[in-house]
Amino acid sequence: MCQLLGMNCNVPTDICFSFTGFQKRGGDTDIHADGWGIAFFEGGGVRLFLDPLPSAQSPIAELVRHYPIRSLNVIAHIRKATQGVVSLENTHPFQRELWGQYWVFAHNGNLPGFCPELVGSFVPVGNTDSELIFCWLLQCLRLRYDAKSPSRDELFIELHRLILPITGLGIFNFLLSNGEWLIAHCSTELNYVTRRAPFTTAHLKDEDVMVDFSHVTTPNDQVAVIATQPLTDNETWVNMPPGSLWLFQDGEAVDHLATQPSPVTSLAN
Amino acid sequence: MCQLLGMNCNVPTDICFSFTGFQKRGGDTDIHADGWGIAFFEGGGVRLFLDPLPSAQSPIAELVRHYPIRSLNVIAHIRKATQGVVSLENTHPFQRELWGQYWVFAHNGNLPGFCPELVGSFVPVGNTDSELIFCWLLQCLRLRYDAKSPSRDELFIELHRLILPITGLGIFNFLLSNGEWLIAHCSTELNYVTRRAPFTTAHLKDEDVMVDFSHVTTPNDQVAVIATQPLTDNETWVNMPPGSLWLFQDGEAVDHLATQPSPVTSLAN
Repeated sequence: MCQLLGMNCNVPTDICFSFTGFQKRGGDTDIHADGWGIAFFEGGGVRLFLDPLPSAQSPIAELVRHYPIRSLNVIAHIRKATQGVVSLENTHPFQRELWGQYWVFAHNGNLPGFCPELVGSFVPVGNTDSELIFCWLLQCLRLRYDAKSPSRDELFIELHRLILPITGLGIFNFLLSNGEWLIAHCSTELNYVTRRAPFTTAHLKDEDVMVDFSHVTTPNDQVAVIATQPLTDNETWVNMPPGSLWLFQDGEAVDHLATQPSPVTSLAN
Repeated sequence: MCQLLGMNCNVPTDICFSFTGFQKRGGDTDIHADGWGIAFFEGGGVRLFLDPLPSAQSPIAELVRHYPIRSLNVIAHIRKATQGVVSLENTHPFQRELWGQYWVFAHNGNLPGFCPELVGSFVPVGNTDSELIFCWLLQCLRLRYDAKSPSRDELFIELHRLILPITGLGIFNFLLSNGEWLIAHCSTELNYVTRRAPFTTAHLKDEDVMVDFSHVTTPNDQVAVIATQPLTDNETWVNMPPGSLWLFQDGEAVDHLATQPSPVTSLAN
């Protein structure tokens, strides 16, 4: 499997601290050594860094760790290959353009039985099930709404409707963003923490590094960090229930819907 | 205006030497300080590094200069803004997917009178005329061939047909690649050099740096480097005639067509 890292904020924020711990899991403190990638939205643009090397040994990861790129939405991924060889074209996150916005997608899981028909508007370049499902989702959205984007909330409901039949086919944790919002689906394992005033000190699990957020924030800052496994050992992470789809904007979870038949009754936040 | 740099090879080759000189022109030896970008094809994948900072001061450019990424096709661009603000979404090269391949495009020039109608399959994210024309070209290709890519040579002829009416509207030097081939259009200024055995020593114009290619190549290597202005001062660069469209594959120019009414009679190669 793989690990996911996402960040959604109300002011452009750098992810250097969280990425420091996440990077270690790509071949050092954990086994996800089959490539890594990270996408930063900045305005309408995206910076997408990809490397088939393990993140713990990647010169590009070193740059990302030390170069504070400030972004409202970030999606990162470290890969343990299940489908598709280790190559650049199979490295997450994947990026496409829809309705004049870049969309970025990363997946942790395995959907071997999902074989949708593609009409040609979005076609995978590599051979992962992850890129295939991303192309299929975008194709469905374009066919449904043609050339005009629906509202955020309508889109969230439509995405929920689209993924419902797929969730039973395998493991399908994913992060998706168009630069305005970030959508997270917890199929088996995903956690998030919201950082807001009063800010305190956080300590990484994977490396003995601390940061006092009160020194680097303003009182109105709000940041949600989403990760397969919590990145810090002294903050309260919300364990997202398996079978839940979450919508994040401006640094907080603004909506969530169940994606499994059994009702999810204890959604936090 | 801007400056373009392209490389097309028959074996994966790094561009560190050529990029060293090119990088200096982004705010040091020349005025193109409104951002820069470089795309490396590796297999079907693309690594696209973008930075709105001047390349001469960019930490990402420093990484690219020292990290030998080996590629068959590279497109780089340093920007002097004419249309569109300085921002990440307006930074070249632009990337889209068509027929399951990534396509990369960079433009030097200005086409103020070109206002094509877009149907929604490819929509600009930023507000440059360059991204607009790239989206329009891809839209035309998809409408013409639907979901199936034509042969390389048919594509070259179709691209020639598509750009003919546009070439009179302004300055339209561009580089385009799908990872298999690289197409270069010289509207006003573009040069190329082919490096093949016997390899010799090259010396940069913009910095006192030399490389002896005989030490880093094998006898069958072949590399074409295309640039707005020659990057070295001791090699024979071919000055591409204004109004010529070139197709490069496996490190050499394999075809060219005139794109201006007056016949181009002295095409080298």
